Amino acid sequence: MSHLGPLRCRTWAALLRQLLRPPRTVCNRAVGCHSQVAKAVLTCEQLKPHQQKPNFIIKVPKGTRDLSPQQMVVREKILDKIISCFKRHGAKGLDTPAFELKEMLTEKYEDNFGLMYDLKDQGGELLSLRYDLTVPFARYLAMNKLKRMKRYQVGKVWRRESPAIVQGRYREFCQCDFDIAGEFDPMIPDAECLRIMCEILSGLQLGDFLIKVNDRRVVDGMFAVCGVPESKFRTICSSMDKLDKMSWEDVRLEMVAGKGLAPEVADRIGDYVQCHGGISLVEELFKDPRLSQNQLALQGLGDLKLLFEYLRLFGIADKISLDLSLARGLDYYTGVIYEAVLLESPAQAGKETLNVGSVAAGGRYDRLVAQFDPKGHNVPCVGLSIGVERIFYLVEQKMKISCEKVRTTETQVFVATPQKNFLQERLKIIAQLWDAGIKAEMLYKNNPKLLTQLHYCEKEDIPLMVIIGEQEQNEGVVKLRSVASREEVSWSWWKYRVLNVLPSLFKRQDLVV
Amino acid sequence: MSHLGPLRCRTWAALLRQLLRPPRTVCNRAVGCHSQVAKAVLTCEQLKPHQQKPNFIIKVPKGTRDLSPQQMVVREKILDKIISCFKRHGAKGLDTPAFELKEMLTEKYEDNFGLMYDLKDQGGELLSLRYDLTVPFARYLAMNKLKRMKRYQVGKVWRRESPAIVQGRYREFCQCDFDIAGEFDPMIPDAECLRIMCEILSGLQLGDFLIKVNDRRVVDGMFAVCGVPESKFRTICSSMDKLDKMSWEDVRLEMVAGKGLAPEVADRIGDYVQCHGGISLVEELFKDPRLSQNQLALQGLGDLKLLFEYLRLFGIADKISLDLSLARGLDYYTGVIYEAVLLESPAQAGKETLNVGSVAAGGRYDRLVAQFDPKGHNVPCVGLSIGVERIFYLVEQKMKISCEKVRTTETQVFVATPQKNFLQERLKIIAQLWDAGIKAEMLYKNNPKLLTQLHYCEKEDIPLMVIIGEQEQNEGVVKLRSVASREEVSWSWWKYRVLNVLPSLFKRQDLVV
Repeated sequence: MSHLGPLRCRTWAALLRQLLRPPRTVCNRAVGCHSQVAKAVLTCEQLKPHQQKPNFIIKVPKGTRDLSPQQMVVREKILDKIISCFKRHGAKGLDTPAFELKEMLTEKYEDNFGLMYDLKDQGGELLSLRYDLTVPFARYLAMNKLKRMKRYQVGKVWRRESPAIVQGRYREFCQCDFDIAGEFDPMIPDAECLRIMCEILSGLQLGDFLIKVNDRRVVDGMFAVCGVPESKFRTICSSMDKLDKMSWEDVRLEMVAGKGLAPEVADRIGDYVQCHGGISLVEELFKDPRLSQNQLALQGLGDLKLLFEYLRLFGIADKISLDLSLARGLDYYTGVIYEAVLLESPAQAGKETLNVGSVAAGGRYDRLVAQFDPKGHNVPCVGLSIGVERIFYLVEQKMKISCEKVRTTETQVFVATPQKNFLQERLKIIAQLWDAGIKAEMLYKNNPKLLTQLHYCEKEDIPLMVIIGEQEQNEGVVKLRSVASREEVSWSWWKYRVLNVLPSLFKRQDLVV
Repeated sequence: MSHLGPLRCRTWAALLRQLLRPPRTVCNRAVGCHSQVAKAVLTCEQLKPHQQKPNFIIKVPKGTRDLSPQQMVVREKILDKIISCFKRHGAKGLDTPAFELKEMLTEKYEDNFGLMYDLKDQGGELLSLRYDLTVPFARYLAMNKLKRMKRYQVGKVWRRESPAIVQGRYREFCQCDFDIAGEFDPMIPDAECLRIMCEILSGLQLGDFLIKVNDRRVVDGMFAVCGVPESKFRTICSSMDKLDKMSWEDVRLEMVAGKGLAPEVADRIGDYVQCHGGISLVEELFKDPRLSQNQLALQGLGDLKLLFEYLRLFGIADKISLDLSLARGLDYYTGVIYEAVLLESPAQAGKETLNVGSVAAGGRYDRLVAQFDPKGHNVPCVGLSIGVERIFYLVEQKMKISCEKVRTTETQVFVATPQKNFLQERLKIIAQLWDAGIKAEMLYKNNPKLLTQLHYCEKEDIPLMVIIGEQEQNEGVVKLRSVASREEVSWSWWKYRVLNVLPSLFKRQDLVV
């Protein structure tokens, strides 16, 4: 009723507008004010400047999205599983700012530097939104002179890529990273990273998957023996990284026409990128007449051999495949690199194809921390990043196909009344439920209808109702009702029972009485 | 050993540098590579361009910070408590992008618009980082044409304020918001918001607190009867909002000298801002000869009276005080407003004073959603925001004073060996522990010393060790050792026991054997 006084003079224009609109729309949207008159007030044209109707299209920025309560529930469950896996492997949590000094991020992302979101120069420091969680982690290690750390970080990162939203790619997206920093015996931490990827992907039940593995030194060695000029290593590497999205013909065209590589050199690369297999491929490549001449490639192959031995002991060798086409575009990788792909789309039976690319990736980056250290001191690192955005997308699609419903609240008890003038009692009861740690709701109405209250419980899947009315008040009881079965019991000493019995019931499980 | 080949030629310059440095520093920092030679390689000057030493000071942007694992543990515990309170009240989760279209945020923050972080115009939309979680929520409601929603959101917001970091104020900080949107009977959702603030502040055990309450209509009515011109309402309101940080004399000076208010008008305001009290003050103000002439003020007082009645039923009336000096600077509030302050610093006995200002605040904003709706349709809202950054600061200070230690990992079992050449066995055992869901770690060394392994467990507070050596292998057992008590038992059929007994032990509690 608060706007009635000074605003009443403006209602006629608005009422007129209402009459001109189709009735359905009016009905549908006429909410939000304390009376019909007030409703009209707020649709009229003569509001104060800051109450004017917006003259812009209401939307979120390109490539970003809101997450609805339904999506949040799915996301929370997935992140919980990922984080508990990270904790199972002894990782500590870390958080870094959303933006970094721009100079901290330069020269870390090769061709992708233009995809960085810069902040406007409003006086002071030049800032950019973080592009990943790896570079901030390396900056953190150097800044705090840490020699060792096993950390996980979950957070948003931002990239100004042309968004292909249908495939679960956004300009703002969440990453879940696990990294092991420190000087250790070779390949033990690297093998644990692959083990973590397996545990997470198995645990999320996304269907069968494969982790492609390669080594940057093998890539560079391969380039060298194929005849790629050293100055072109990184840019050819970043072309090769597109092989999961583009055919070899297109990648070859980019290398030759776009980056000036000799066609015969590209063809030699083409022979190698067909190769994939397990430990036996490693043995074979050791004997490759060209590759075995290259020291760098031999180092990489030696480490890969050791890695496969550890993967066998970890019981995951069958999930890993050496794939010479794997390059990983980022500039900072120095050793083993890997990328997990789902082997078949879980919606194969459905209508949509779920081409989501890789769902996890990572590698060894032994020289990134030194780039931040004033004295050039180094900390070798290896890590992985889970592409949760794509996993969310897959799980959501799966749920859509199976028509699975999710509860978006955790409310256990609803406080209701069948009679008028029971607001005071309801407020007292719900406060006692909250005191006991029970998740409880009621309608914010003085005199709600019982049917409305029942419907609310059904809509929100609330398992239990506490009902108070005249009869109950006279008898000194409350009624407990199971929403699903419609059974009711009367509870005397309800305060005692509500405070002592209900919480233990709910602790036992998600109770449906 | 991976960098030895092509880099060896560059080691002499580096070795020379090492000799010129004080030995302690070398010792302290000489980490990160596979050999002494390689270590030197990475400190030398002739590295590739992208491996050069940085020529900038390594830091985080002004007003931001990293959160260390210790801080993350504290933060996680506090956020867990806050979020479970929000869920206890039936709230659904929501997430919105870190930035919004700039035009979505204009005209929402009155004097504070200059504190917004804008993104650089890189072609495309003009964007700003979100300033709070309230405006994105209103935008979400309007965009999705939602008439009702009870939601919580936890996320970072950004404000280019001059950072007073010692008081726990940052330019990047986390907010925890709870809001109720929808058309309901008056003051029921408002009272629940205050109840939530009380539950959270009591639950976090920050010491005694008080929630100041006022109503924007009472503020405006007070301004009107004091003689403030209507055009100056908002700016005088934003001056009054500084009363928690500045004395009345300074605020009066800003009003008179800075904003051209007549001195006698300021003095009349000065009389009112002294007033604070409970329901009796509301009754008193109803009879105030000037205020009772103002319709807007009377509406506000009427709602406050009802609010106090509900607060009594919720059992929290003693925590709430009507305070006419409370203004809340943000432009969008339209009804009841509130702010929680801690009554005495918990570190009173310590050396530092903990002036952290308000720790929670909020209010009713009935016309914000209409500003986003193309047809001006409205959804009244009321909500609150928990100032978690300040709460983190307080809890950290308390822990510092009481020398409380926190575990930064959750590792339950450490896999160790007293002998050489047991890496394979350790890898197999730890994989089985992970399979069973046990949080387990080991050292990434081929042949670690037993003492190093024991020290690691003590440092990281890991309760249990699984030890495997020659003797155990011959007997077909593993040794289980309690790190704290140093007791050991031999377990035969350890695979069966590890997989079936250990997990249930850890489920029971955080076991210290």
